Amino acid sequence: MIYFDNAATTFKKPKEVTDAINYALVSYTNSGRGAYKAALDSGRMVYEARVKLASFFGACDPSRVIFTSNATEALNITLFGLFHTGDHVISTVTEHNSVLRPLYKLESTKGVGLDFVGIDECGRLKYDEFEKYIRSDTKAIVINHISNVSGEIADIEYVGKIAKKHNLYLIVDASQSAGSINIDMNKTGIDILCFTGHKSLFGPGGTGGIVINSDIMLDTFKVGGSGVQSFNKNQPSEYPTRLEAGTLNIMGIAGLSAGIDFINKTGKANIHKKEMQLVKRFYNGIKDIDGIRFYFDKESLENEPENIRHGSIVSFNLKKIPSADLADCLGEDYDIAIRAGAHCAPLIHKAFHTEKEGIARFSFSYFNTEEEVDETIKAIKEISLNYR
Amino acid sequence: MIYFDNAATTFKKPKEVTDAINYALVSYTNSGRGAYKAALDSGRMVYEARVKLASFFGACDPSRVIFTSNATEALNITLFGLFHTGDHVISTVTEHNSVLRPLYKLESTKGVGLDFVGIDECGRLKYDEFEKYIRSDTKAIVINHISNVSGEIADIEYVGKIAKKHNLYLIVDASQSAGSINIDMNKTGIDILCFTGHKSLFGPGGTGGIVINSDIMLDTFKVGGSGVQSFNKNQPSEYPTRLEAGTLNIMGIAGLSAGIDFINKTGKANIHKKEMQLVKRFYNGIKDIDGIRFYFDKESLENEPENIRHGSIVSFNLKKIPSADLADCLGEDYDIAIRAGAHCAPLIHKAFHTEKEGIARFSFSYFNTEEEVDETIKAIKEISLNYR
Repeated sequence: MIYFDNAATTFKKPKEVTDAINYALVSYTNSGRGAYKAALDSGRMVYEARVKLASFFGACDPSRVIFTSNATEALNITLFGLFHTGDHVISTVTEHNSVLRPLYKLESTKGVGLDFVGIDECGRLKYDEFEKYIRSDTKAIVINHISNVSGEIADIEYVGKIAKKHNLYLIVDASQSAGSINIDMNKTGIDILCFTGHKSLFGPGGTGGIVINSDIMLDTFKVGGSGVQSFNKNQPSEYPTRLEAGTLNIMGIAGLSAGIDFINKTGKANIHKKEMQLVKRFYNGIKDIDGIRFYFDKESLENEPENIRHGSIVSFNLKKIPSADLADCLGEDYDIAIRAGAHCAPLIHKAFHTEKEGIARFSFSYFNTEEEVDETIKAIKEISLNYR
Repeated sequence: MIYFDNAATTFKKPKEVTDAINYALVSYTNSGRGAYKAALDSGRMVYEARVKLASFFGACDPSRVIFTSNATEALNITLFGLFHTGDHVISTVTEHNSVLRPLYKLESTKGVGLDFVGIDECGRLKYDEFEKYIRSDTKAIVINHISNVSGEIADIEYVGKIAKKHNLYLIVDASQSAGSINIDMNKTGIDILCFTGHKSLFGPGGTGGIVINSDIMLDTFKVGGSGVQSFNKNQPSEYPTRLEAGTLNIMGIAGLSAGIDFINKTGKANIHKKEMQLVKRFYNGIKDIDGIRFYFDKESLENEPENIRHGSIVSFNLKKIPSADLADCLGEDYDIAIRAGAHCAPLIHKAFHTEKEGIARFSFSYFNTEEEVDETIKAIKEISLNYR
C-alpha cells in the first residue's frame, strides 16, 4: 500500500515509538495511583512527557500539559471550559467539525455568539475580517493552524498580534501542524494549543492533549477518580488533574513521548523539508493535467522546500471525477490510500463550492518516498486519461 | 515484582493482547474515515470488537457499544447524558469518585437529587434501603458492581428486580467486575453498563466503554468529527457515533478485543475460580494474624473457590499500621506492589471509619501464582511482628 492519508493518521511510526509502546506494556502500570516502583516509574514517564511537550511547543508550565484521547476531546474540554453565555467567539471557515460542532452546541445551548472569518479561492484566510468581527463581548479567536482540506497554514503570528491588541485569548487547533511545522506558543502568543498524538507527532491513536500557556482556568469537563484529594467532592482544582479524570493511557503516552524524541532527534526543519519535497514533487507531477483544480496557494510551492509555508497536504479535483471515485479507483486499482469527501470540514467546502463532489486529499509523512509519489502521479494521469 | 494491584490495572497481559497491539500498529489506520483497504479493515476490526463486547455482556445491539478512553469517561457520558434538573438518583456508598463526582456535579449544577444506600460492617449493601429511597422523581439506580475497596459483589439480580418493579433505569459501574465475573445484561435487566478495558478485560490503558441495552438516548457529551454527516451542525444522532467523536484508539481497541478473546477461550468461570483460589489462599494465610481487621464478608470465602461470590480483592488493616506504611514496606523491602489509602472511594471509608488510615488492598489476577501469594503472606507476617 502507498499510504497518503497521513493527515488522518500517520501509518508508519518510528521504530522508537513501537519500541516504547512495547516497553510500556511490560514496564508501566498506572500513573499517580500507587507508591510502588512500577507506579512511580509510570508517573515519572508521564511527567517527562509533559515536560517534553511543553518544551516542544514553547510553553512554560509542564503541569499545564493535559493528556486527552485525541484532539477532539482536547477541543471539547477547551471550548466548553472557556465559553459561557454572554461570550462571542471569532473562528474561521477552515475549522474541522471538532471545533465547529462544540461551537454550534455552545451557540444553541448557551447563546454564545459566533463569527467565521472567510477564505479566498486559494484557501487563504481573509485576515482583515478578524478585526471587523471583534465586539465588546468577544472573548477569543479559535483558529485552525493548518487546514486539513487545503493544507494552507494560518498566519498565527499575525492573528496572535490582533488577539493581544484586543485582549482576546488565542486558541489554536494544531491537529495538522503539531510535529509538521514549528510552534512556539510563547513567541506567537498562543494561550491554548490543542493537539492530537497520532498524526505528525507519530504517537499511537488514543493520544492528544491541551497545552495551556496562560492563566486560564478552564471549567472541569470529565470528573472522577484523581488519585489525590479523594475526600474532595469536586475534581481537584489544580492542573493537570483539574482536566484529567480516570486512568491515563500510559502505553499511548509512552508512544507519544517517543514520537517527540524522534522529531527532536530528526529535527523539525528536516521533517518539514522532506515533506515539502514530496509535496512539491507531487504537485509538479500533476499540475499540468487537463482540468485539474487545486485548493491552495500554488505560488507558495515555487519556493525551495525548506522555505515553503504549507502543510503536507495536496488537494484537488480532477475534471468531472467525483473525489470519492478517484479515491476508490486509486485504492482498488493501485493500492494507493487517499481520502475523498468532506473531511469533516463543512464550511471550507461551502467556500470552495465543493459540497457535492468533495475534494481528493493526498497527505504526506516524513516516511513517504519519492518513488511512492512518482507511482501515484502515474496512476492519476492514467485515471485522468481513462475516466469517462 | 509481585504485582497485587490488579484492581488498578492488570499488569501482565495475555500474549494475544500484546500480539494484537503490535499487529494493529502495522495493519490498521483509522476507522470510519477513508474507503481504502486498511481503513475498511480497521473499521471491521472495531465493529467486530463491538459485536464481541455486546455478546460478552449479554447485550442485544453491537451499535450500542460505545468506546471510551476509560470507565470514568464512560460514567461521565452516561450520568451527564441521562440526568437533568428534576431527576433523583439512588446510588450507594460503595461508589468510586468516577460516579460520585459526576453525581455531586449534577447535584450542584442541576439540582439533581441524590441518595446513597449504606453498607454494613462487612461492606454488604443494606438492600432494604433501595426501596425506601425511591421517590416519584427517581429516574435510576446507579450501582457499583464490585467495590474496589472491599471486593464485595452487589446483588445486581436483586437490585435489577427493584429497578424493574419501579420502572427505574439500572446503571452499573462494572470497572471491577467486567471480565472477573459473568455479566448478563439481558438477564439482570442492566440498562447501561460502564466498563474499563485495562483491568480484568486485559486490554491496554486508554480503553473502556458503555454498553447500552435499552432504548435510552443519552445526550451527546463530546461532539466533533464523525466521519459521516459532515454537513450536519450537530453530532449525528445514531449510536455509536452519537457518543463517539474524534479518532478512536484503534490500537487500544485491538488489544481489548484480544483480551475478550483470551477470556472467552480460557473461560470466565475458570478465570474466576483461579482468582478465588488465590483470594482464599491469601486470606487463609493471614486471617489469624493478631489484630487484623478485614473489610468484607469472610463467610463467603468458606465456599469452594468456584462458588465464592467475591471480587479478586482482599482488603484489611493491620493493628496500628497505617495502610500507606504497610504498602511502602511491602514495596521497598519485598518488591510487592499493593495499594493503600482511600482508593478514590470516600463514602465507603466513612462507613468503615477508615478515612485516616485508609485500607491496604491486595488485588489478584488470573496471572498471579500461589507462590506469589505465599511469599506475600510471609512478608506480611514479618512486618506484623516487627512493626512498632
